[in-house]
Amino acid sequence: MINVAVAGFGNLGRGVKKALEKNPDMTLVAMFTRRPDQVKKGIKDVTVLSSEKFSLPKGLHIDVVVLCGGSKDDVPVQGPFFAKMFSTVDSFDTHADIPRYFKKMDSIAKRNGNVSVISAGWDPGIFSLERVLGDAFLPGNKGYTFWGKGVSQGHSDAARQVDGVLDARQYTIPIESALRRVRAGETPDFSKRQMHKRVVYVVARRGADREKIRQEIAQMPNYYADYDTEVIFISAKEMAAEHSVYPHGGFVMTSGITGENNRQILEYRCQLQSNPEFTGGVLVACARAAHRLKAQGQSGAFTMLDVPPAFLSPYSDEDLRHRFI
Amino acid sequence: MINVAVAGFGNLGRGVKKALEKNPDMTLVAMFTRRPDQVKKGIKDVTVLSSEKFSLPKGLHIDVVVLCGGSKDDVPVQGPFFAKMFSTVDSFDTHADIPRYFKKMDSIAKRNGNVSVISAGWDPGIFSLERVLGDAFLPGNKGYTFWGKGVSQGHSDAARQVDGVLDARQYTIPIESALRRVRAGETPDFSKRQMHKRVVYVVARRGADREKIRQEIAQMPNYYADYDTEVIFISAKEMAAEHSVYPHGGFVMTSGITGENNRQILEYRCQLQSNPEFTGGVLVACARAAHRLKAQGQSGAFTMLDVPPAFLSPYSDEDLRHRFI
Repeated sequence: MINVAVAGFGNLGRGVKKALEKNPDMTLVAMFTRRPDQVKKGIKDVTVLSSEKFSLPKGLHIDVVVLCGGSKDDVPVQGPFFAKMFSTVDSFDTHADIPRYFKKMDSIAKRNGNVSVISAGWDPGIFSLERVLGDAFLPGNKGYTFWGKGVSQGHSDAARQVDGVLDARQYTIPIESALRRVRAGETPDFSKRQMHKRVVYVVARRGADREKIRQEIAQMPNYYADYDTEVIFISAKEMAAEHSVYPHGGFVMTSGITGENNRQILEYRCQLQSNPEFTGGVLVACARAAHRLKAQGQSGAFTMLDVPPAFLSPYSDEDLRHRFI
Repeated sequence: MINVAVAGFGNLGRGVKKALEKNPDMTLVAMFTRRPDQVKKGIKDVTVLSSEKFSLPKGLHIDVVVLCGGSKDDVPVQGPFFAKMFSTVDSFDTHADIPRYFKKMDSIAKRNGNVSVISAGWDPGIFSLERVLGDAFLPGNKGYTFWGKGVSQGHSDAARQVDGVLDARQYTIPIESALRRVRAGETPDFSKRQMHKRVVYVVARRGADREKIRQEIAQMPNYYADYDTEVIFISAKEMAAEHSVYPHGGFVMTSGITGENNRQILEYRCQLQSNPEFTGGVLVACARAAHRLKAQGQSGAFTMLDVPPAFLSPYSDEDLRHRFI
């Protein structure tokens, strides 16, 4: 049995908790949170501990801590903190900082004999893996990543900054005709606008200038200006009723030529009704791998590119060869 | 530079040769064949050696031998033979015998300090990997593998055994409506007939009883009886003109539920205009991994489930983290 602790009890933390319930070789032994008194009210079946006043109850053994905070403020602090004591898994997704974060976690985990799987989930994570596999099998390929249809937290937050916006939910939507062209063997150089469009559901303050909000969102640099953006005004009630789950998904496509002119197209797709629950499932599989790698005597930071896939599975190597090969 | 030899110069061997030309970190240094005199005529740029009267020219250094013979007669003999001297990669695909073959190769490769990657390619191989990943991320899932549209050598051979058949080419075709149902979130228990149909192009002997051939093929147990099979008679000229390339492809789908009732669907698809050339590309990436695993001090048999994905790529770990994560 692998003893897992979860740090952070937002959407992702709850997703990890649900995933652990479906993996009989693992058990949730503790939750770390900044708000232990509050979290304790909702959760009766797990030891809830403060992540700030850190102290382990006697007899509590933790193998792996799954870090479920945000990549901006939480994981960069919690990763190095927990990696001193335990193996860890996180979904750190600030792409530009991944190499630096990897180095830091690698050195701490190595020094303490732990294994830290970083930047796990579906993107970064599974999609990273599929990009690397596609590239390894088809050198000289053209690769594409499409996201959606799904909620982007960053884009939703950005829209919420606009004056007069009380709440916002942004859906990233891949352009169907672009997907179809790649699937049919074309390898265009797409602009951002040709690959994705954005739809933003906005709850506006009463009396706010909707046309001004619409334009401010659509023209926001980095987030919206490079895309066709549709802004749809809804009520707070509609927002709560229709936009409270977090679906997502996407496509990794690798299109290459072999021999004279033989087109080879690989496509990985995920359709997720709940992004945090699926990500939770991936992190839990990575926690299993972290535990096994450590048991093998390995230590340091790993990404999903460094983990032998069999280590993610609950089945023995013999079972895998019988049942899945 | 990784020195690679290829054993067997059929469609797959030629696919591996072409793939090596696209991987600048690897070079083809020798081809082993049972018919060296014949092969030498067609190939000027590579040392051609007899696989039966085995003797290595002085100064020829081989890191990995890629075995491109058939799983029935060639690989079970060549694998153990070459694994004594070199790391190896093969696409052994007799599913029921994989566990036994693994054990045999594992013991020989370990004894000789080599790495043997067995049962590589797309199925077994990438599809095995995708089945295991899907199962690890979504416990309690329902998994589906669809093949095609593509040529099955085994089914083509079986049709050729029917009296009056001079040549035959069988295409396995996935049933579109079945794919659509899984993609839409249903998880049916399909019969074989509901997942695939078969189309056989047949060149019949002049004067042969076509209706009899049609029935004999369609009723053949194991190969055809469980499927809707269409038999189409064509001329030898049409066979040569339209059925000389070997397209293939398929789908691995994993459909699971997380949390209360959130449907999560993973789909991996490949569309291959040339099956042997794509398989060649996969085997070459595995040859790179075999070489690296051995350089790390590892030995024994591996499947693609046991290989850290980064080992398949020509890029360094740092490059991968910068460019693909």
